[in-house]
Amino acid sequence: MTTRFFGAPIKRNEDKKLLTGRALFIDDVELPGMVHAAFLRSQVAHARIKHIDVSEALKRDGVIAVYTAHDLGPYWQPGPLLVPPPPIPGSIFNTRTHVPLAKDMIRCAGEPIAIVVAENRYIAEDALDDIAVELQILPAVVDLEKALQKGSALVHDDLGNNVAAHVRQTKGDYARAAAKAHRTIKRRFRYEHGISSPIETRGVVAQWDARAEHMTVWDTTQAPVFVRNVLAGALGLGEAQVRVIAPFVGGGFGPKIMMLYPEEATLPWMAMRLNRPIKWIEDRFEHFVATTHERGQIHDAEIAVAKDGRILGVKDIFLHDNGAYNPYGLTVPINSQCTLLGPYVIPAYDSTFTSVFTSLTIVTPYRGAGRQHGVFVIERLLDLAARELGIDPAEIRRRNLIPKDAFPFNNEIIYQDFAPLSYDSGNYEPVLDRALAAIGYDHFIKEEQPKLRAQGRCVGVGLACYVEGTGIGPYEGAKVQVRTNGKVSVATGVGTQGQGHFTSFAQIVAEQLGVDVTDVDIVTGDTDRFYWGAGTFASRGAVVAGNAVNEASLVVRKKALKLASEAFECSEEDLVLADGKVSIIGIPEKFIRLGELAQRANPMRGAVKPGTEPGLESTQYFGPPSGSTANGVHAMIVEVDPETFQLQILKYVVVHDCGTVINPMILEGQIHGGVAQGIGNAFYEKLSYDDQGQLLNASLADYLLPTSLDVPRMTLDHTVTPSPLNPLGIKGAGEAGAIPVGPLFAQAIEDALQLGDRGIELLEIPLSPSRVFELIGEGKAEGSGA
Amino acid sequence: MTTRFFGAPIKRNEDKKLLTGRALFIDDVELPGMVHAAFLRSQVAHARIKHIDVSEALKRDGVIAVYTAHDLGPYWQPGPLLVPPPPIPGSIFNTRTHVPLAKDMIRCAGEPIAIVVAENRYIAEDALDDIAVELQILPAVVDLEKALQKGSALVHDDLGNNVAAHVRQTKGDYARAAAKAHRTIKRRFRYEHGISSPIETRGVVAQWDARAEHMTVWDTTQAPVFVRNVLAGALGLGEAQVRVIAPFVGGGFGPKIMMLYPEEATLPWMAMRLNRPIKWIEDRFEHFVATTHERGQIHDAEIAVAKDGRILGVKDIFLHDNGAYNPYGLTVPINSQCTLLGPYVIPAYDSTFTSVFTSLTIVTPYRGAGRQHGVFVIERLLDLAARELGIDPAEIRRRNLIPKDAFPFNNEIIYQDFAPLSYDSGNYEPVLDRALAAIGYDHFIKEEQPKLRAQGRCVGVGLACYVEGTGIGPYEGAKVQVRTNGKVSVATGVGTQGQGHFTSFAQIVAEQLGVDVTDVDIVTGDTDRFYWGAGTFASRGAVVAGNAVNEASLVVRKKALKLASEAFECSEEDLVLADGKVSIIGIPEKFIRLGELAQRANPMRGAVKPGTEPGLESTQYFGPPSGSTANGVHAMIVEVDPETFQLQILKYVVVHDCGTVINPMILEGQIHGGVAQGIGNAFYEKLSYDDQGQLLNASLADYLLPTSLDVPRMTLDHTVTPSPLNPLGIKGAGEAGAIPVGPLFAQAIEDALQLGDRGIELLEIPLSPSRVFELIGEGKAEGSGA
Repeated sequence: MTTRFFGAPIKRNEDKKLLTGRALFIDDVELPGMVHAAFLRSQVAHARIKHIDVSEALKRDGVIAVYTAHDLGPYWQPGPLLVPPPPIPGSIFNTRTHVPLAKDMIRCAGEPIAIVVAENRYIAEDALDDIAVELQILPAVVDLEKALQKGSALVHDDLGNNVAAHVRQTKGDYARAAAKAHRTIKRRFRYEHGISSPIETRGVVAQWDARAEHMTVWDTTQAPVFVRNVLAGALGLGEAQVRVIAPFVGGGFGPKIMMLYPEEATLPWMAMRLNRPIKWIEDRFEHFVATTHERGQIHDAEIAVAKDGRILGVKDIFLHDNGAYNPYGLTVPINSQCTLLGPYVIPAYDSTFTSVFTSLTIVTPYRGAGRQHGVFVIERLLDLAARELGIDPAEIRRRNLIPKDAFPFNNEIIYQDFAPLSYDSGNYEPVLDRALAAIGYDHFIKEEQPKLRAQGRCVGVGLACYVEGTGIGPYEGAKVQVRTNGKVSVATGVGTQGQGHFTSFAQIVAEQLGVDVTDVDIVTGDTDRFYWGAGTFASRGAVVAGNAVNEASLVVRKKALKLASEAFECSEEDLVLADGKVSIIGIPEKFIRLGELAQRANPMRGAVKPGTEPGLESTQYFGPPSGSTANGVHAMIVEVDPETFQLQILKYVVVHDCGTVINPMILEGQIHGGVAQGIGNAFYEKLSYDDQGQLLNASLADYLLPTSLDVPRMTLDHTVTPSPLNPLGIKGAGEAGAIPVGPLFAQAIEDALQLGDRGIELLEIPLSPSRVFELIGEGKAEGSGA
Repeated sequence: MTTRFFGAPIKRNEDKKLLTGRALFIDDVELPGMVHAAFLRSQVAHARIKHIDVSEALKRDGVIAVYTAHDLGPYWQPGPLLVPPPPIPGSIFNTRTHVPLAKDMIRCAGEPIAIVVAENRYIAEDALDDIAVELQILPAVVDLEKALQKGSALVHDDLGNNVAAHVRQTKGDYARAAAKAHRTIKRRFRYEHGISSPIETRGVVAQWDARAEHMTVWDTTQAPVFVRNVLAGALGLGEAQVRVIAPFVGGGFGPKIMMLYPEEATLPWMAMRLNRPIKWIEDRFEHFVATTHERGQIHDAEIAVAKDGRILGVKDIFLHDNGAYNPYGLTVPINSQCTLLGPYVIPAYDSTFTSVFTSLTIVTPYRGAGRQHGVFVIERLLDLAARELGIDPAEIRRRNLIPKDAFPFNNEIIYQDFAPLSYDSGNYEPVLDRALAAIGYDHFIKEEQPKLRAQGRCVGVGLACYVEGTGIGPYEGAKVQVRTNGKVSVATGVGTQGQGHFTSFAQIVAEQLGVDVTDVDIVTGDTDRFYWGAGTFASRGAVVAGNAVNEASLVVRKKALKLASEAFECSEEDLVLADGKVSIIGIPEKFIRLGELAQRANPMRGAVKPGTEPGLESTQYFGPPSGSTANGVHAMIVEVDPETFQLQILKYVVVHDCGTVINPMILEGQIHGGVAQGIGNAFYEKLSYDDQGQLLNASLADYLLPTSLDVPRMTLDHTVTPSPLNPLGIKGAGEAGAIPVGPLFAQAIEDALQLGDRGIELLEIPLSPSRVFELIGEGKAEGSGA
């Protein structure tokens, strides 16, 4: 492969459409006769429903229908499990999935109880107030530790306890490692709840064509094929009778994939019943309670180190806040468990988690998907070990890095992402070196920091390493088709939420077919345009769909050369495909354009040989044997105001290795966005609950998101260690920016304020100025075991 | 293949939908904001346009736009040739194709000049009267012979004459055959213009989605893929941006395929320009002038026979009325030329035709597609020869039949249907025997006819043999997919106009996959559901698409058995696929349902092997090496009123061989419909023109169609000679019923009225009572060379 298009920082094809307002987002879908739905959501976290009276709502002008669980009848069985539990021996996994509308029990605030359909959303919202719901309030389950104590209220009565899952994975013998360790260091770490806060909230529009017996659903989902399949089954339709379109979506980040949200399940059902198109767009308040959350966890973790800083073992016991139901399986805590191992050689590992049912919103993956927690724990443990052993934080990391000749590196942890945890390739030390060089690490700690401290300024440095599993299976597919005008159409089953697929996929095609990137049209997320696929999650779009695009392009390339060789009566080796045409090497004036070859590939008359396929096109699928592992190092220099604890990022460095790079500009954008979101998570974002499971800060006035003032300019660099698991050698990059920001903050703030010298440790996330103020006021970091 | 479904007379899947009014026909398409188009059509056949003034029309309330050729600008190049001329050396082929709106010249009455778009059709029609068109009337070209004379008016000035094409094909040496013949018999034969008169006229609805940049066109076309491809090119869109849906269509018969009609070209263009959905439904008057016609021809044909009735040779020189343009190429006269050879051994053949431009509506294939004329000429020549030689008409046919051991039979005619004319298989004599037996031929002529004649009743018998080329290439494809509920979806590119595809294709699938016919859903004629294909014409649907369905079903069957063998860990040979499940032979309680296999075929998580395809599905294509030839014999006994010449069909027999039969009930329906249409053509239907090219009978009050009173009960029988050209062994059957009815009528009426004894020969079609009256009044058949 040459590198005319592949690897070039080409501007995005989709931006013209996006910037001129011509891209279709879900609220742009306006259909004649469309009605609007509003959901009555529980204001309490745990209650028994005694009675629902919708009669007043039905009397309101403009109300068309009101539905409760009673009306749904047997329509929807408890939602299927999207992700099955991993086959880890001895695991406990108690499945409790949600229903579209609460029938007898409410298990978290925000759970839908009834739906009003009206001529417009205003009327529908007003009519929600007309519905009388008689409830018997029950005690909420909010505190993870209390939830597991005897006598706790139960989220699911029938279960007898609040254990959603209990999983232990081990490697080596931690007890023996601890026994021979120079030191063991144990702490409690805490990571708070958060939300993904995409620019665009969720939404569903459903349209039933009774005559054609065809359902069209516009949905902000990240997995339109899944939604199509499940909806078809539930509605009693064939898969081909349901078209799910995920249009341009203003950010996904994980929570836009769940199987299925109540709104996704009920809107099509109502459209069919009412025989009118119906729309629901999530408002920002609903987003706080109705879209899945990120994960609260409490880790009790211990590291055993040798005198030279080598890790002998890690033991971790943690609680994972699952929320009220677990339709998504165990992806998040399993990721936390596996990602803790990071880029380090850790001979012994003993990790146990309990996933706990609470009276809170369901937790499913959000950018990073539990990996943050693992990285936070191991990186903080290493910082503590470095301090105790008197080793430089960078140096202790270097000493523990997996050497470059150890790949593929088998972590001996049984299972992550549906495969044994093995790192396909990597070369970690140069990444660390480049990060240290870029941040000016030595200069900073030896010269700059002392100098500034002497001036009374609180400056500190943070450093965090991570490995990220990306690009998992099962598969994606792509259809690549040369049109008769010489342009190329590509369709794939993945949806898109801003990742630049319209450009990066086009670059792959352009490279193989010798056409301009702007001559390649991409369609994503429309089940009528590409039938099969899994979706956009786990940093897998470029890896899995990208390689399917590449495979299909290669077949089309071969077909084009074969057709041209027949036309010219020459060997394919004598031909070159470039600039939209196939020409004879050395005779550039002898050529056939790709569009003409496409015409020849579809004989209009005469006979074609049996077994022949028409069209200059190919549909190919790609499924990697297992996920590929990207890695990186973030480093940061901060200055903290010693009075207000307001923090300013002076320098931010990301050095990253995600294998072969398709478009460095898009890659940088992904990193920028990830870091911004990581900063929000690490610095500001925390969902605050009272002990009745009431969310206290459900607005963007109270739940702070980072603004452009909080997100620094970054220095980005990358190394390239191609993945051996796919022909393009690529690894995922969508989540990398967000993963290591937490420990970076903790370490940099500690360093800036010289908290270590005062015996204060920052062992929790987020670390807002007020929280740092509190922790310092308490004289020590909460949960510090020192 | 067993025969549980295949070959069974299963009731039609589609009828439930059709009979309960839930089938979508084009006029059922109602879209919000839809506007309506009406076409201003020329009332004269030949004129120069001096000026068009649309200003008054634009002032009318409710008129949205008026378009003329000036507005179209360069939008549409003269239509592409759908069918290229055959590569016959020495042929002349002058291409002149039409434009959507006449710019400078009008070349036939009905040619569109302007389009009014209005809020409803009433306003649009009224506003047509507001348009002032200044014309310079030119002499029309109507008479085929005069058209070729020096000094004739010219349809296309620049051509210098009116020759659309001139083609000669020869076999053997006719002059030598004639020289050694016992008799040569020469006559002039005439076949009149007609129209196809489907129950549903044509229509187009176009909807442009500006935001999605997507065009949807509902079109009564028989070839939606062609329309999609051509429209995409013309509109500057990619093929995938255009969806053409041919919904249920109330009869096609050939004229619903042309590349493209002005309405098909302009409606989408206007929808884009106005950004509103737009509809046009052809009214019955328009159908007479705006939908292509069937063919007028004049043959001067001569047969050379031996004393025993053996054909030594045939010479035929004929004129074909092409109409004003020739976008469809030479299919019709080439078919006439080739089909004349029929089921007979004809050692010498010399056939020349001139296709003539006239000021009449364009001629394209209509059910039979020119084959009628060839059959009419040879069958009538054989009748004349039989009379002159004193041989029984059945016997002279038998003596000339191609013997059954002569197949594949090469006719040595260079070209028909894009391949050398070869009959793939056949066994003709049993077909003749069965027809004679079924009509009671011997009994009739020896006993019944003399007895009835003695009573003064005019009864006669007719007998006609024919061979029909069917099932031509290039190819069709089909996607067969088992859904997770165990039902099967099939999509194919052919459209459907009532042929029973929803059942016959389902039978093929049911047979291969062991599911019920009612569990197989078929989608036809939607370019978004199946991308590639040619269309429904040339009796090719079952042959070409049916075999593609079969190929795809076979692959799915293999996949199902493989998946089940993996699940059961047994050999595929130990498994049986029946009743919607795969079970182990001998252990019927060990089974997996097809739906479950479909689920297993789409892994939702984990990894799939690279190169694996998801889904229990397959897309396959089939293209036959050449057309397969069906054959048959029709026989008829009629009674003619000697005063009014009103005719009553007393008995009608069809014995037919179209290879393997998928569904005999559907086959019978096709034959019934074909014979009904054949009777209309032979008996009533004639477009009458004056010498200015004005159609004088453009209404169903004046242009008579057969009613149920005219169409007799038929005795149907078939023999089965499988085609070796496709795995299912099938041949087409869609046109067979219509082809031989003309000579049958002529022969039976002659016989009934004993016209031969009076020197009167019926050598033209149609033969309405009034025409027979005229011919007898003239004392001889017009054009009789006797």
